[in-house]
Amino acid sequence: MNSEQNERSRRRFLKKGAALAGLAVGGGVIRSASGQTLGSETAAVRPKDNRGYGERSRFEKAARWPLVGDWAKPETVYAQSRTPLQDLEGMVTPSGLHFYIDASAPFPLPDIDPQTHRFLIHGMVDRPLILTVAELKLLPSVSRFHFLQCVVGTTRERNHLEFHETAQMTYGSSSCSEWTGVLLSLLLQEAGVQRGARYIISEGAERARRSYSFPLEKALDDVIVAYAQNGEALRPEQGYPVRLVVPGWQGHFSTKWLRRIKVGDEPYTAQQAGGLQTTVDADGKLSLPDAPLVPRSVITFPSGGQQLPGPRRYEIRGLAWSGGGVVRRVEVSTDGGRTWKDAQLQEPVLRKAHTRFRFAWNWDGTETVLQSRCTDELGRVERTIAEIRRERGDNPDNWGSAAAVWKVTREGSVHNAAYGPHMSPPPRPGTSAETALNRNPGRERSSC
Amino acid sequence: MNSEQNERSRRRFLKKGAALAGLAVGGGVIRSASGQTLGSETAAVRPKDNRGYGERSRFEKAARWPLVGDWAKPETVYAQSRTPLQDLEGMVTPSGLHFYIDASAPFPLPDIDPQTHRFLIHGMVDRPLILTVAELKLLPSVSRFHFLQCVVGTTRERNHLEFHETAQMTYGSSSCSEWTGVLLSLLLQEAGVQRGARYIISEGAERARRSYSFPLEKALDDVIVAYAQNGEALRPEQGYPVRLVVPGWQGHFSTKWLRRIKVGDEPYTAQQAGGLQTTVDADGKLSLPDAPLVPRSVITFPSGGQQLPGPRRYEIRGLAWSGGGVVRRVEVSTDGGRTWKDAQLQEPVLRKAHTRFRFAWNWDGTETVLQSRCTDELGRVERTIAEIRRERGDNPDNWGSAAAVWKVTREGSVHNAAYGPHMSPPPRPGTSAETALNRNPGRERSSC
Repeated sequence: MNSEQNERSRRRFLKKGAALAGLAVGGGVIRSASGQTLGSETAAVRPKDNRGYGERSRFEKAARWPLVGDWAKPETVYAQSRTPLQDLEGMVTPSGLHFYIDASAPFPLPDIDPQTHRFLIHGMVDRPLILTVAELKLLPSVSRFHFLQCVVGTTRERNHLEFHETAQMTYGSSSCSEWTGVLLSLLLQEAGVQRGARYIISEGAERARRSYSFPLEKALDDVIVAYAQNGEALRPEQGYPVRLVVPGWQGHFSTKWLRRIKVGDEPYTAQQAGGLQTTVDADGKLSLPDAPLVPRSVITFPSGGQQLPGPRRYEIRGLAWSGGGVVRRVEVSTDGGRTWKDAQLQEPVLRKAHTRFRFAWNWDGTETVLQSRCTDELGRVERTIAEIRRERGDNPDNWGSAAAVWKVTREGSVHNAAYGPHMSPPPRPGTSAETALNRNPGRERSSC
Repeated sequence: MNSEQNERSRRRFLKKGAALAGLAVGGGVIRSASGQTLGSETAAVRPKDNRGYGERSRFEKAARWPLVGDWAKPETVYAQSRTPLQDLEGMVTPSGLHFYIDASAPFPLPDIDPQTHRFLIHGMVDRPLILTVAELKLLPSVSRFHFLQCVVGTTRERNHLEFHETAQMTYGSSSCSEWTGVLLSLLLQEAGVQRGARYIISEGAERARRSYSFPLEKALDDVIVAYAQNGEALRPEQGYPVRLVVPGWQGHFSTKWLRRIKVGDEPYTAQQAGGLQTTVDADGKLSLPDAPLVPRSVITFPSGGQQLPGPRRYEIRGLAWSGGGVVRRVEVSTDGGRTWKDAQLQEPVLRKAHTRFRFAWNWDGTETVLQSRCTDELGRVERTIAEIRRERGDNPDNWGSAAAVWKVTREGSVHNAAYGPHMSPPPRPGTSAETALNRNPGRERSSC
């Protein structure tokens, strides 16, 4: 950006009363007028248990669970930590348990100082912008609850349904937070998108510098340049200090550790996303088979790996979501899919957010199969593996978005029953992840 | 509870299909069918940065700030840690930053093993209940966003308005979480409340064993016996493993570390709550001057202790809430109260929950005063100190619920301007808290 452009950019913001450049907003440490500092400096006057930032009880063990490869072969390592959905309640995923996929693993997570971090909006715009996090925070903001879901668990990947038992390992690559930030549409308006622009590409500051394209139309719709998650700053795994949130689309579009947005007339780097995700058509157009993401649901209780204490009345609980907007309906079957009844949806039911559902169930102690089925506001209905197979063929790599199926034995143990006679049996524990990765060790990986 | 009662209780639950007693639900550690454990045991296979439970960035310093007394005089010590509202976004308060008041300080927080914890419902009920946390989790549940607010900052306490600068120290005894648990009305229905019962008393397991009464009518309305906060287990400071959430009422009613609920025909221990809170009338009826809590609001940006980088366009942000239901309206004045305009409310606007508001403001660089004013669904309007003073008299101890007033100087520094010529000047830093407590060192304290 040359100085003339810079000056034009400044005039534009001043005209609107928003001088973005050259601001000096204080960092995280706020001082009172009397000079008292609010921050970690207070430890000396704080009793042992009067904690400035409270941690959870030592009795709580819920944790993300990484899918790992062979550490002797870094190219197989996949830091894909999934959310323990079966341990959670409500619609908010605790930030510390939000799933994450880091394509840079085993390299450390980015450790970015927000005071020095900058991000750039350039390309086919009239007024390129360079923003600090502090400047971003001064702009008009929004707060919205949205789920993010990794490409793993969409229609394009088999989601390892066949070798994992729990809700966490099969469906834990979806999490939901309250995101706060600035609408990308506002920033693009400030930058002045030029005629002919059709795509943006966004790039993260991680070592792998993953970058993804998506259509300008989506960028101008509901995409958030987010700096806060569940009330406070983003966690490092979720892109601290600033990320994109692209609601309802595959998670890899929601670029973390955001450093650059470029506006262009073609989907620059769609090839980086690999075969699992987007492809470019013969006419140079981005193909987005999973946008918006299909309706999904998972029963979190009872779910695979859990043990029921005996016949009695239970509350079946789960989560449903869709990239297409609000969840309109969740049905539950407790008899292997023969009959379905409506579950109760917990208010508020929000667009492109996890929705908690509940369903009363009297278990008589016989073996049975539990399933849920989500319908979204577009009228789309979640499909079973059999339905997906009819459409997508016999390759289980394409069956990832199938609804969860939990079998309850007469002893009350609960198991993943998604795999049937048409799928291979689960491999031995401890080898599954490596097996999956070694099938395709050099493939491109997403970061979300 | 004798064995006959016990048997009757069991029959009742069995009749409804809900056998509460004698269940053996596994703890926090879930094992897969193959024996793999999901929990902290995974550290060995987890790379350094692939964290099972993610912490925040080392650059983030937002912290609760304790109001402390003289540690040489334990009777003056008041572990009252307030939420850094000025550092937060959206409506969710991160669990680690939720305010807390621990009347047992300087003794350690309760460290309760959920496997051995029990709580009791007894008194004027047909079928006393003893419940474990695991049993509670099997019952029909709800998830609701509610704020909790300490008695500090209600109409009955001056809220130290006169000697604190920041939003945190003046309004940070209100926080908002998504709570999940069982409606107390369901448990009372199971227990069978007897004719003539009018009050319940709830008791915590902390060393001080604080107990508070409130009317049965409220207990049967919207009170939650909560075990989860923002998706995961309660934090120890918020009553792990189980607490009451009494929406819209003073926080001390929301008994933490819940061990006992007794149903009775009189407000047993209202005297324990001290003069700050509830009193018993001559006819033995509980007086609840602050139920439901009055409408409140606070501008969190710009707020006391912050520094504006110069004249420009800003987004004023803040939080509003009311014990009376939803926030219907928030008005903002940027000219010392002469004119007021409607702020924008962030959806979803939920009952008895924090509501984020936003307001566009062009600051021309002159000295000015910023205020907000909340109107709730009952039509109640938040009052200024002057208005409260006219009603409650000259004792500032009764002015606590006044709206925030922030003065912006020409230099851009922001200060608490709630104290005017009618209030004494702030004492020197470092002595204020002690001064306040030493005024009344032996007084009863609440825990919330």
